[in-house]
Amino acid sequence: MISFESDYIAGAHPKVLERLAETNMEPLLGYGDDKYCQMAEEKIRQACSCPDAKVHFLVGGTQTNQVVISSVLDDYEGVIAATSGHISIHEGGAIEFTGHKVIALEATNGKLNAADIDNYITTFYADGNHDHIVFPGMVYISHPTEYGTLYSKDELTAISNVCRKHNVPLYMDGARLGYGLASRQTDVTMPDIARLCDIFYIGGTKVGALCGEAVVFTHNNAPKHFITKMKQRGALLAKGRLLGIQFNTLFTDDLYMEISRHAIAMAEKLKSMLKEKGYRFYLESPTNQQFIILENEQMSKLVQNVCFSFWEKYDDSHTIVRFATSWSTTEEDLKELEKCL
Amino acid sequence: MISFESDYIAGAHPKVLERLAETNMEPLLGYGDDKYCQMAEEKIRQACSCPDAKVHFLVGGTQTNQVVISSVLDDYEGVIAATSGHISIHEGGAIEFTGHKVIALEATNGKLNAADIDNYITTFYADGNHDHIVFPGMVYISHPTEYGTLYSKDELTAISNVCRKHNVPLYMDGARLGYGLASRQTDVTMPDIARLCDIFYIGGTKVGALCGEAVVFTHNNAPKHFITKMKQRGALLAKGRLLGIQFNTLFTDDLYMEISRHAIAMAEKLKSMLKEKGYRFYLESPTNQQFIILENEQMSKLVQNVCFSFWEKYDDSHTIVRFATSWSTTEEDLKELEKCL
Amino acid sequence: MISFESDYIAGAHPKVLERLAETNMEPLLGYGDDKYCQMAEEKIRQACSCPDAKVHFLVGGTQTNQVVISSVLDDYEGVIAATSGHISIHEGGAIEFTGHKVIALEATNGKLNAADIDNYITTFYADGNHDHIVFPGMVYISHPTEYGTLYSKDELTAISNVCRKHNVPLYMDGARLGYGLASRQTDVTMPDIARLCDIFYIGGTKVGALCGEAVVFTHNNAPKHFITKMKQRGALLAKGRLLGIQFNTLFTDDLYMEISRHAIAMAEKLKSMLKEKGYRFYLESPTNQQFIILENEQMSKLVQNVCFSFWEKYDDSHTIVRFATSWSTTEEDLKELEKCL
Amino acid sequence: MISFESDYIAGAHPKVLERLAETNMEPLLGYGDDKYCQMAEEKIRQACSCPDAKVHFLVGGTQTNQVVISSVLDDYEGVIAATSGHISIHEGGAIEFTGHKVIALEATNGKLNAADIDNYITTFYADGNHDHIVFPGMVYISHPTEYGTLYSKDELTAISNVCRKHNVPLYMDGARLGYGLASRQTDVTMPDIARLCDIFYIGGTKVGALCGEAVVFTHNNAPKHFITKMKQRGALLAKGRLLGIQFNTLFTDDLYMEISRHAIAMAEKLKSMLKEKGYRFYLESPTNQQFIILENEQMSKLVQNVCFSFWEKYDDSHTIVRFATSWSTTEEDLKELEKCL
Repeated sequence: MISFESDYIAGAHPKVLERLAETNMEPLLGYGDDKYCQMAEEKIRQACSCPDAKVHFLVGGTQTNQVVISSVLDDYEGVIAATSGHISIHEGGAIEFTGHKVIALEATNGKLNAADIDNYITTFYADGNHDHIVFPGMVYISHPTEYGTLYSKDELTAISNVCRKHNVPLYMDGARLGYGLASRQTDVTMPDIARLCDIFYIGGTKVGALCGEAVVFTHNNAPKHFITKMKQRGALLAKGRLLGIQFNTLFTDDLYMEISRHAIAMAEKLKSMLKEKGYRFYLESPTNQQFIILENEQMSKLVQNVCFSFWEKYDDSHTIVRFATSWSTTEEDLKELEKCL
Repeated sequence: MISFESDYIAGAHPKVLERLAETNMEPLLGYGDDKYCQMAEEKIRQACSCPDAKVHFLVGGTQTNQVVISSVLDDYEGVIAATSGHISIHEGGAIEFTGHKVIALEATNGKLNAADIDNYITTFYADGNHDHIVFPGMVYISHPTEYGTLYSKDELTAISNVCRKHNVPLYMDGARLGYGLASRQTDVTMPDIARLCDIFYIGGTKVGALCGEAVVFTHNNAPKHFITKMKQRGALLAKGRLLGIQFNTLFTDDLYMEISRHAIAMAEKLKSMLKEKGYRFYLESPTNQQFIILENEQMSKLVQNVCFSFWEKYDDSHTIVRFATSWSTTEEDLKELEKCL
Repeated sequence: MISFESDYIAGAHPKVLERLAETNMEPLLGYGDDKYCQMAEEKIRQACSCPDAKVHFLVGGTQTNQVVISSVLDDYEGVIAATSGHISIHEGGAIEFTGHKVIALEATNGKLNAADIDNYITTFYADGNHDHIVFPGMVYISHPTEYGTLYSKDELTAISNVCRKHNVPLYMDGARLGYGLASRQTDVTMPDIARLCDIFYIGGTKVGALCGEAVVFTHNNAPKHFITKMKQRGALLAKGRLLGIQFNTLFTDDLYMEISRHAIAMAEKLKSMLKEKGYRFYLESPTNQQFIILENEQMSKLVQNVCFSFWEKYDDSHTIVRFATSWSTTEEDLKELEKCL
Repeated sequence: MISFESDYIAGAHPKVLERLAETNMEPLLGYGDDKYCQMAEEKIRQACSCPDAKVHFLVGGTQTNQVVISSVLDDYEGVIAATSGHISIHEGGAIEFTGHKVIALEATNGKLNAADIDNYITTFYADGNHDHIVFPGMVYISHPTEYGTLYSKDELTAISNVCRKHNVPLYMDGARLGYGLASRQTDVTMPDIARLCDIFYIGGTKVGALCGEAVVFTHNNAPKHFITKMKQRGALLAKGRLLGIQFNTLFTDDLYMEISRHAIAMAEKLKSMLKEKGYRFYLESPTNQQFIILENEQMSKLVQNVCFSFWEKYDDSHTIVRFATSWSTTEEDLKELEKCL
């Protein structure tokens, strides 16, 4: 059975495991206070061209969104997100669990629009009763989005400008950031992101790590006593080394981008293959997730040999499904898939 | 520099790393829905002689306490714990963060007393105004305690009986459970714990794993939709395999107990060494944590060559410090230490 | 300046004040444990034809929604509501503050549709990933709605049936319940509501009281230890008499309905007056709130002599405004208004 | 049956009811935005000699403590209080419900000691692991305390100095403030309190109002968007007039102090009477609450004719009970009581 179900079906990139093994018996301090966390932080600062950045390491994506958003917002504030945003639907209400509303705005192919954000915030402050309404206290975007799409540099700049105009921090969920940066159709770099966002995270779980996400506060804007806030949310890992060593490895010798480019190369081949075979795409995705529309019968057959994700119902006789490549996808996998299609 | 600072200074037991490497490229489902999690669950059930148990894997200790306690308690309930309990002081208010009071009772050497618990609950219900007071909804104990001490089977049975009498679940924090079970001075077995507690967790982070704790609900008493509750608390690991493979390895061929016995053997040697050298013990600990009282001057010298933990001030000229052994402590470490003492 | 701004611009109905004065020096127990609360509860049970109902008194509407919803939902559940529902927008995120998502469905003129609710819940359970999504744990409707509209008995029955089919409680926000029941265009009675809803509240603040709402749990379904849950949410009034005496008065000699009918009579006159003068209605409301569309210039003039509420922008040159009558509206007020129109 | 059970057994002072009746039909804006709230605020500022103070009106004591404490604290902070403090035990966990720990310090006769607070905070910051512990973010005292006792000006000054030294706000729960200020054994005035505390509240519920507490932020230190925070906690009263009119009346012509002095005069007589009859006092209280120790048999008899509060068990054969006077206690009541004693 060949698997294109998600980008977290395998363990870690072999170099990551190697480094974990090599450093295994070194006695190190806990809670992120070890040299590998420090080295990883420094390398990430350099990759971002952001010498003032403060980097914290967390275990998973939902945890990271929850910890960051609830630590930054004041009680009376909520977070603006796309209706299709991960925090809006697929995190079990983790943001609301911490007391904050997700203010969902309509999005196109997973992307928020700067003008819509501007309009929402402007209308909010113009409303004489806004004291009775949740304040917009942050803008959340995912890049790549949940549909694999990407913001262009212009779009990202426009959103950033709106956020700064209204003094609302911009936070980017980069669970698949590597696959966005490695896309052949992007003009956005890591330093662009660090410059345009106030906070973002670099996904490890889906890009070569066993677990782990690196949160970047780009300009001395980490919340006061963030370590305690992490602890209090059950998110401070005792053996911080597990995260530090992994990110230090991923940010050594360009490994993070190298494996991301591999995933994109595999995705491009997958895309061509699907196009050649006449499959119908739900949308044009420039990254590692590809969404196609299958007839339900066709789907029932395919699912016997290939693992993919059911995304949503398209109509009564069709379903949208997702194929994902990752750092672990091989040419072999693609050949196997080709036989099944 | 020789390190006895804590029981989480090293990575994972080499066999655990090996298994992670061997299984690394197997495509597996996420979120704990993989065969290794299932195998680990089954082995833990057997180790507990508890065929009905439901086992869930979480990443760390504070997270586990937070997720379990807040998932089991109703809004109007708090959790009884020792004033020295980990949840009472050293988890940054993680229980209160979820809306619940920690009802702290005085303890002796880290241990709660069955009669004190009984008295507290009885007095609570006898108070005509108890509708204005937080209800006692759970009893939390740690075993070994934060002071390395252990409950005897009689003591644990007495606490369990009080809990059942009042219909309040008993939850055991087993962050260092292996070191408790392997102690030469215990009459408590894993099946005893499964029989006497309603919920307990088997610590991995401090006993051979990179991370991970296995929560055991002993009698079909896992909260409804616990997976969603984990997700909502940011505690559902995407690559559940990381936890499943580790616990499956630790519970294969008695590895968990074997490495725990090793830590205890090291602790016994450490204890003899300290006693021979005339060091003064703060209390008698039968497990891997040893607490001694140092003169402050003596401490200042020792700290130059040995890492240990400052515990608390004893008096103006003395300090209580902790030495911890673990699965990773070697005879070499002890020899090095002997030179420094 | 004549005031049609809202239905809470005056104090209490004079009979309510009288009874507060008459009973003022009687020594009574606190926290709702007094005879007036008991008498009020009994009269409400009779008005509902619901002898098993349990009635609790709370101070205000947002508080009532917050206390009821957060007390009934389990952690993993959210509440379905119209996008225009009071809890969705105008309560400052009070539901999310307690950890729960408001699942907003599109509504027509403030009303949810049974089929939409059914479809949402059915789709939810059909989604293989629903463990990662907030569970629908309650349906919230307001009656009258925020737009003054009413559910017909058929519509309410349909919603009730959907809720029971899915085992999800139906909760009605009756902040203006009297004005709904007294409408000339309704076929819904208080016993209908008690029969079709699982929980509802009878608004006092907007219908003759200084403050106060009466929550009715219709079939022994009040959450366990609801008093403690109220206390814990800061919502248990020390002098419960203040609520008991008011509701006891409002439910004596049909006062609640009598004053509600008066408000509706005033609203009907207002409506005729506005229609005659050629004002354009935003929608047809059968209750005490009337929404009209004003040209912005016209609005600027009118606002100099009459208080009304700005509701929302209609287009660049028009605004929707609200006129509300209440138990305190007089014929005089209407005459004054007529002069200004 | 004569009642000394609590200081909230009667309605409101007659002048308060009168003013509610007189102003009843005036159309007023909601949510505290009316002239009576403004007038009350101004009068309270004057009574406090604190022209910069910001005053907000809330409905009840637990609500006030919850709203103030949770609005002022950052996530990682808890509030220091006496173990006998109202928030520590008798508010159903309302503080923890909002995510914050109550850090309970031992107290004497209900009073915290400045040196104990200083020591706690100093020790906290000296602990190398304090990032894993809840930060002390506020000090809560009640005045009078739950035992009727009072801080002297020196004691209050000492606590205030400790708080300012550590930059931790001092918050006073003044549920019975009038009875403290009117005591014959106090040297503390309202301006002293406003000068020494950062926040305090003036209790209305127990001192002449139907409901209501006035929170005073003494130096432009009200939390940002406090109105929204109140709304979000279900604590913003729609008809704010109910609170504004009551406090405006209580702070006109010294009514608040006049009725407080009456309660104290009644308490002094009660005290003399009890002393003459040979009753044993649990402690010396200079305010309206008197605690005496009764033999259980004696208590069983007395309870047939007099309402008082059971406080706590003293020993197996004795119980501590409380008699409370208030603005509504009459000479008649005392005469009746004398007959029963």
